[in-house]
This record gives sequence, structure tokens and C-alpha cells, in this order.
Amino acid sequence: MAGEGARVRRDPHRKRRIVHAAAELFAAQGYHGVGMSQLEKAVDLQRGALYHHIGNKEALLYEIAVSPLQEMVRLASEIAARIDDPEERFRELARAILVNVADNRHEWTVHYRDFGSLTGERLETVLALRGEYEQIWRDTLRAGIERGRFVAPDVDLTTRGILGMFNHTWLWLEPDGAVDPREIADRYCDLFLTGIRAG
Amino acid sequence: MAGEGARVRRDPHRKRRIVHAAAELFAAQGYHGVGMSQLEKAVDLQRGALYHHIGNKEALLYEIAVSPLQEMVRLASEIAARIDDPEERFRELARAILVNVADNRHEWTVHYRDFGSLTGERLETVLALRGEYEQIWRDTLRAGIERGRFVAPDVDLTTRGILGMFNHTWLWLEPDGAVDPREIADRYCDLFLTGIRAG
Repeated sequence: MAGEGARVRRDPHRKRRIVHAAAELFAAQGYHGVGMSQLEKAVDLQRGALYHHIGNKEALLYEIAVSPLQEMVRLASEIAARIDDPEERFRELARAILVNVADNRHEWTVHYRDFGSLTGERLETVLALRGEYEQIWRDTLRAGIERGRFVAPDVDLTTRGILGMFNHTWLWLEPDGAVDPREIADRYCDLFLTGIRAG
Repeated sequence: MAGEGARVRRDPHRKRRIVHAAAELFAAQGYHGVGMSQLEKAVDLQRGALYHHIGNKEALLYEIAVSPLQEMVRLASEIAARIDDPEERFRELARAILVNVADNRHEWTVHYRDFGSLTGERLETVLALRGEYEQIWRDTLRAGIERGRFVAPDVDLTTRGILGMFNHTWLWLEPDGAVDPREIADRYCDLFLTGIRAG
């Protein structure tokens, strides 16, 4: 990583790379187990520059916890706007989240493990984004029910059960595992779609 | 741990109560955010007695992370031995885990959030128990497939997807929520059983 600093200075992805490197370190050693000097070394920045780009350690934790979630909300909103058919919308939402989890496994590990260390507005934002994301899945289920395509006795509970199947993969999904995340997504969709199809 | 036998004999639930109180505190403030003196106050023991009953702080984290999981493995093994029908076995396994999550939500919160702070043999034991527990669900799926009752293209992936639905409830399941955990379990079983039924 030596010398990266100079190269990265003009790099628009700099913040993202800092967040990614910090996520890897936090995922390996725990948010509370990582000291500031270790962090500086991992992201190849001195303390002043690190504070300049990110802020303090909690701000960095926030960036790690919020980045993949923000991306998911953005992607899911785009999918919901683009795909009308509720089954196909579920499939695209599922593929998008499993690709995201595989690509950001360190971030999701830190997210679920350490979001409780966030405080105030940062914690509220993370929880609100989770709610927003869940809402997109809930609306998909509702859309299918309204068209007589799906049946679910309790929309909230069913949505949470379905989402659990995908969200819990942070614990084991390998980015270079034997099966492509998109294929896992399709299999999980086969599993739950059969359970909610009407008729 | 020397001498624990004698003391615990007079209050068999004492250790469990210590673990429960500590879990509540860790769940609220984070394992790393709780100091020893705060812990002593919460479990109403002085440091010497606390060390006598549990050991150090990591030993207490281990007890919290391992207790509900050990109970699940014990219960699930008993269910697997008792119930032959694979669908009914899944239903009982599902009810048992959701009741367990609802009853031990603090423990599961600490489990998923802080198991990464465990080291050496303690971490290995937790991971081995998780594997053992997953194996019981996998065997249930396999038993159903062998009898021509279930179909699953990839037993490992399907097992993990199904389990994710139940395990991820640590994040939101309320012990006194509107719906009984056993009923939630049945609904989730309806959801995935339809997806794996043969024919």
C-alpha cells in the first residue's frame, strides 16, 4: 500500500477504498479491537488526512455500515421502478442483494456486528435505511397480493422471513464460492415463491 | 471454576441468572462498552465471586454466546430422535428455535454481534456447535429427499436459506410480540415447505 496516498489523491473512489480497507480490518479484528494507528496504516493515510476524509472512528464505522445499505436502497428502488411483474421484481431484488453481500462481505459483517456502537443520528439513519429497504420488499409482496398472484397471511412477517433468508447470508456467503450469488438468489426465490403463489 | 460445583448445587439457576443479566447489559451497551465494575453491579456479585462463578470477561461472553446454542442443539437432537416425519420434524425444530430466540434475545444479540471477540477453543466450540445444529436441519431435509417427500437441488444451500429465515429473527423478534413465536414458526414452515415438497 506504500505510496498509494499520492496516487489516490486525484481518485474519486478514494473514500470508498478507505472504507473498504477499514471494513476488512474491522471485520478481522472487531471495531473495538482496532486502534487508530493500525487504521492509519491499513488505509495508508496519516491521522490528519484520515480525519479530513472521514472524520473520527465512529464516522468511519458509520460509512462502513451505511455504504452497502445505501447502495441496496438505491438499486432496489431502481428495480422496483423498472420491473412491474412482482415475481420478476423479487428475483431481481434477490440477485442484487446477494451480489451486494458477496461484494461487501466485510462491510456487512461490520454492519451487523457493530451497528450497535453507532449513536444518535448515525444509528437512526442506519435503522431508517433498513426500514426503507424492507419496505421495497413488502411493497413487492403487496403488489403481488393485490393482483391475486400471491397469498400471505401476514405481510410483515412474511416479508421479514423472506428477507432473513437473504440478509443472514452475511455469515457465510463467499465472494468466490462454488455457486454464483445470482444463482443462490434464484434458488432461494424458487423456495419462497412457491410458498406465496396463489392457487 | 474450582469449587463451583458446591455453590451451584444450592442454586442451580445462579449461573444462568448471572449469564442472563450480563447478556442484557452486553446487548444494551456492547461487550466492549461494559466495564467490570458495571458488570459486578448488574449481576450483584463482587469481583471475586464473579470470577469464581464464571471466570474473566471473555469467559462470560462465551457463556452468553454458547448457552442458547447448546440448548438448541440439545433440543434439536431430542426432536430429531423423537419425530420421524420430516415435515413434522421441521415444524418442531422451527418452533423450538423461535421460542429459544424469543426467550434469549439478549443472548442471541450478543452471540451474533460479539462471537468474533471469542478466541481459541471458545470460538472453535461455538462454530462447531453451529455446525452441529445446522447438520440436524440438513439431515431432516436429506431424510425427506430420501423418502421422495422433498426436492432440493443443493442440500447445503437450501438448508442455509431455510435456517437464515429463522436465525435472522434475532434482529427483530419480540418476546411479547403480537404473534406467538410458535405461530411465526408455522408460517415460515408453510413458506419453505411448499418450496421443497416433491411433486
